[in-house]
Amino acid sequence: MKTITKYLTFHTEERFKLINITQDIVKVVEESNVSEGICLVNSMHITSSIFINDDESGLHLDFEKWLQKLAPHLPTKQYLHNDTGEDNADAHLKRQIMGRETVVAITGGKLDFGPWEQIFYGEFDGCRSKKVLVKVIGE
Amino acid sequence: MKTITKYLTFHTEERFKLINITQDIVKVVEESNVSEGICLVNSMHITSSIFINDDESGLHLDFEKWLQKLAPHLPTKQYLHNDTGEDNADAHLKRQIMGRETVVAITGGKLDFGPWEQIFYGEFDGCRSKKVLVKVIGE
Amino acid sequence: MKTITKYLTFHTEERFKLINITQDIVKVVEESNVSEGICLVNSMHITSSIFINDDESGLHLDFEKWLQKLAPHLPTKQYLHNDTGEDNADAHLKRQIMGRETVVAITGGKLDFGPWEQIFYGEFDGCRSKKVLVKVIGE
Repeated sequence: MKTITKYLTFHTEERFKLINITQDIVKVVEESNVSEGICLVNSMHITSSIFINDDESGLHLDFEKWLQKLAPHLPTKQYLHNDTGEDNADAHLKRQIMGRETVVAITGGKLDFGPWEQIFYGEFDGCRSKKVLVKVIGE
Repeated sequence: MKTITKYLTFHTEERFKLINITQDIVKVVEESNVSEGICLVNSMHITSSIFINDDESGLHLDFEKWLQKLAPHLPTKQYLHNDTGEDNADAHLKRQIMGRETVVAITGGKLDFGPWEQIFYGEFDGCRSKKVLVKVIGE
Repeated sequence: MKTITKYLTFHTEERFKLINITQDIVKVVEESNVSEGICLVNSMHITSSIFINDDESGLHLDFEKWLQKLAPHLPTKQYLHNDTGEDNADAHLKRQIMGRETVVAITGGKLDFGPWEQIFYGEFDGCRSKKVLVKVIGE
């Protein structure tokens, strides 16, 4: 069995930001020399997500509006978590809807994707450095 | 390490449809001859889901009503994504709640399931053919 | 390839309860002697979740309030599923937001976690025994 583990770091200037990281993951898969296996990609932080969806700018604004409606940032006092001195309780909730991780099949040495699948890092409490783990296992 | 990769195709006549695909996955696991490992099942499209829940028709109607409330299809103009000519922005959102994929343990050559677990394909923007990937790795 | 499979049982006295099970999973990983691989943790029941987030009591109350808002337990008659004699349709919905499973990387024989990641069992229809599956594969 072959394995490879890599850590990517993201630091956004915005509180909310969706970043297409597909090419970063493609590089790790190429480096792994795994032809058949799986690739785990997960946020190592609990106020951000890894998810697969469409790389369309209008949809990304729809996601932001929708997540703010389902888990509003303001007023921050509506959340008990923010009594700890944080103001990011909403980001912990948003991350549950968007998910922590994805597991992608590797077939023939490549991410086995449908026509529109792209991997995104979803930042919901930015302006600080956060890490993403990429682990490939297979042969 | 043994691996097997299969692609299933679904074409629903309804925009919204939940389909129990457990027996399709059971067949792939049997064909793989893997006795200990994992089975990844994911939608290859970004307006549909794979998830595990209950095969109860009332609950499926509850899911539909609930998802329409959280991410309404109408009015389509509420979503920027639909300015691209699509009308399926809501399906991209619904799919985030229901999830892209599941990873199921294989133990003793079988899907290692609890008493009620069933695997579903969730279609939120149907009337077109979409693929589901099934990948088994193990030994 | 090494594999290990364990089953944990939880029986809460409350309908809604979040339990930190990280140390239970650490023990399984240690017992597996896997140094590089992955650990799948999933609820075997369809009204409970496994998810990774923060071990902060205020946030846990925020999660409960938020999930009750998005998928209210009462009135139970709003859900067709409850016509079967159940009263737990809301728990089937809550579980979709919080997720069935997590896949965690194992690196150097340990769960490869960020600084705040903790694994939780989320019970949304308690007062009965339910099982969680833990499967490690790797080498």
